[in-house]
Amino acid sequence: MDAAEFRRRGKEMVDFVADYQENIEHRRVYPDVEPGYLRSMIPSEAPLEPESYEDVLRDVDRVIMPGVTHWLSPHFYAYYANSTSFPSILADLLSSGIGTIGFTWAANPACSELETVMLDWLGKMLQLPEDFLSETQGQGGGVIQGTASEATLMALLSARLKTVKCVQESDPQRSEADIISKLIAYTSEEAHSSVEKASIIGGVVIRMVPTDEHFSVRAETLEKMVAEDKATGYIPFFFCATLGTTPCCAFDKIDELGPICNAENIWMHIDAAYAGCAFICPEFRPLLNGVEVIWGMSFFNPFSIQQAMHLCFYFFLPLHLFSTSLSPHLSSDSQHWGIPMARRFRSLKLWFVFRMYGLRGLQAFIRKHVELAKTFENLVRGDNNFEICAEVVMGLVCFRLKGSDELNKALLKQITRTGKIYLVPCKLRGRFVLRFVVCGRTTELRHIQEAWKHITELSSELLQNLFDHEGKEN
Amino acid sequence: MDAAEFRRRGKEMVDFVADYQENIEHRRVYPDVEPGYLRSMIPSEAPLEPESYEDVLRDVDRVIMPGVTHWLSPHFYAYYANSTSFPSILADLLSSGIGTIGFTWAANPACSELETVMLDWLGKMLQLPEDFLSETQGQGGGVIQGTASEATLMALLSARLKTVKCVQESDPQRSEADIISKLIAYTSEEAHSSVEKASIIGGVVIRMVPTDEHFSVRAETLEKMVAEDKATGYIPFFFCATLGTTPCCAFDKIDELGPICNAENIWMHIDAAYAGCAFICPEFRPLLNGVEVIWGMSFFNPFSIQQAMHLCFYFFLPLHLFSTSLSPHLSSDSQHWGIPMARRFRSLKLWFVFRMYGLRGLQAFIRKHVELAKTFENLVRGDNNFEICAEVVMGLVCFRLKGSDELNKALLKQITRTGKIYLVPCKLRGRFVLRFVVCGRTTELRHIQEAWKHITELSSELLQNLFDHEGKEN
Repeated sequence: MDAAEFRRRGKEMVDFVADYQENIEHRRVYPDVEPGYLRSMIPSEAPLEPESYEDVLRDVDRVIMPGVTHWLSPHFYAYYANSTSFPSILADLLSSGIGTIGFTWAANPACSELETVMLDWLGKMLQLPEDFLSETQGQGGGVIQGTASEATLMALLSARLKTVKCVQESDPQRSEADIISKLIAYTSEEAHSSVEKASIIGGVVIRMVPTDEHFSVRAETLEKMVAEDKATGYIPFFFCATLGTTPCCAFDKIDELGPICNAENIWMHIDAAYAGCAFICPEFRPLLNGVEVIWGMSFFNPFSIQQAMHLCFYFFLPLHLFSTSLSPHLSSDSQHWGIPMARRFRSLKLWFVFRMYGLRGLQAFIRKHVELAKTFENLVRGDNNFEICAEVVMGLVCFRLKGSDELNKALLKQITRTGKIYLVPCKLRGRFVLRFVVCGRTTELRHIQEAWKHITELSSELLQNLFDHEGKEN
Repeated sequence: MDAAEFRRRGKEMVDFVADYQENIEHRRVYPDVEPGYLRSMIPSEAPLEPESYEDVLRDVDRVIMPGVTHWLSPHFYAYYANSTSFPSILADLLSSGIGTIGFTWAANPACSELETVMLDWLGKMLQLPEDFLSETQGQGGGVIQGTASEATLMALLSARLKTVKCVQESDPQRSEADIISKLIAYTSEEAHSSVEKASIIGGVVIRMVPTDEHFSVRAETLEKMVAEDKATGYIPFFFCATLGTTPCCAFDKIDELGPICNAENIWMHIDAAYAGCAFICPEFRPLLNGVEVIWGMSFFNPFSIQQAMHLCFYFFLPLHLFSTSLSPHLSSDSQHWGIPMARRFRSLKLWFVFRMYGLRGLQAFIRKHVELAKTFENLVRGDNNFEICAEVVMGLVCFRLKGSDELNKALLKQITRTGKIYLVPCKLRGRFVLRFVVCGRTTELRHIQEAWKHITELSSELLQNLFDHEGKEN
């Protein structure tokens, strides 16, 4: 394919994407395919000779589209908000077109520098303390990580390194392996599984901290666990707080946890993969209060903010990280701020989205999601068959049919089978709960109303069947 | 930006990318900017109100382009081949447009399934043993990793897990921490720094294995080191072989190393981040012989094959990996085959590129690079001022001016300053050597000839100055 053909095909693809997004509402949001559906639809090996582009594109419709879960559909209420916007797609196209890999400054100065400045922009939008910015001291700052999992792992590894050094300063004979075997990390019982995964990779013990009635970790609980573990010879070194837990968007009390972590020399990291974006709104910023006292790091993965996929942000204070302290063989380039060395030119997405929306536009976007979630919450509260299972703070509503887990499982099964809307469950205090997340850029009030109508119709059928069944039994 | 505006802007961006790539040859390949150049060119915070798209695009030309190292330029001979192709850009645009995150099968069945089948296609192109494919046993297979660093880390962590379990089977009292403290990994002294980084993250000791006169690790050397370490109580558990080292594209002798690793219960992983792609050509496939006897994993990062960026491949045998054995809390979804959970729909790139090129087209692409490298080698060999520093097997030529390191550093400095071509150095046996890698999709014979002419002109000046200077001194 030469440049002339690319011009033609590229413009067709732009229309393909625009058509897809304009009509996505009419597609079944959750696909009606069985595991393994795809293999028999395409050859079992690559062609020897080139095929035509028309054939490839035809197969996108024939093979791919029937198996896609449509994340950008306004009927998608699963996982967490993951909006993508047109400016973000344009920036991504530009990034692909430049085709650069920015693993050192020299490998692409513009890539390294734009990322640094964009993360300062974001830091200011979030009103982070100045120490977290690169422009002030030139040592703090942020980097884009591939995913929240990588950011948490980076934080845990940095904390491990720091603690080993610290212990060895007072006890030079003690081996690294021995120290690591005594390290203990903490996180909420409600935290994302990636925190546990990070501890396994790092080879350290982790304890899950019980939460209060609001699913929040409280200072008292952590303090008690730390004291217990120190008494048995462990070295508490890392606490991953969550602002906006995956199951129900709960918030650990970082303002009371920070001082304890400071006093105990525990590195506190904040996983705000979902809720972080909302802190650009003054009314939500108080939830981040306490970030000032921690000396660790915080992390934001504001899918909704920048409406760009796969940009996660990792802010750090001016501490000696990975880069300079891991090994004398490794240089101090930004490639060592994460696991991978090669990086796409991802900051272009931030730049495009921040500028095309403006701070006010991004705030409005977040507020609209929260407002729609409140609307849904009110609909649920207005129906006596249902109950709300956790406080609705942002765009997530946890709800369930009053009754057994089996009843709620049956309802979710019907929802998934019907394929009109898509949502996923969670467990709260052992109970099976449905999560309704306002996700989409194009989700409007009427979608919320339709979704609720659909849910109540399915649940009425279920309850009627149950009633009939019970009637027969009696 | 609504869909109608996206159609217009998207088509403009397609033209922008096509224009960029068509005229890239006339740009200075290495930018003439100083560190920190960008910050003063843009505001220090995000705008409050939306800006116009025209302003953003104007700034791409004003702010970004002057600071870009043009990886897709035919004058780019640095690092390693990283071609991107038009079909790959189209697939990337489609992936952005669908905007899905495939971290479980349900999150996007098409994404999970196409990836599995594409990796089978690739495995067959590479003539991997059947055990490495998913279609045969349904348990082996490949996944796309973000980068080579992540693949190596995954392999090392899997090996660590397996060895801990294995040791505990015969010695149930021994703690995981104690076992890990005794583990020892090996890799070539010529291996990429990401292998050392993986060992640091995994908290295990690593030893660098000396190479023979061809920069290859030999069985005898590894065998001796393993015996030494066992004698002092270490547990050898992991060997990362390299096929195509970063400095000079050397090949470890995996056919003689595999049996030793097998005998010693050492997990052998192959890092073929550069050279792996060439194994789709029958004439290069013998370099992979020996993969049949290893029970570990191998890894290929064929940038040139698929001409798509940031796709790395990680093949594994049907062993219990991360997924099922790490922890009972973590499920067995493919999200656990790597560090990150969220994944773009990256297999679309493979599908588009494999089909639009066909196996023969991809082979021709690789052969052309190798041929151009041979041409460059002959030019160097024809000039008595220069010497070739390592065997030229694929697209990389290691060369230097006969004389001091200072002389060669001065030459590279002139090359970089002039900005007509871009290459980076390496060290071979302590000597400063220039690396010339044929990288580009559009690199032709005339570019190679021009590059050589440019290098010899600069070196003639240097040698003349040196001669004049020495003349004066005498």
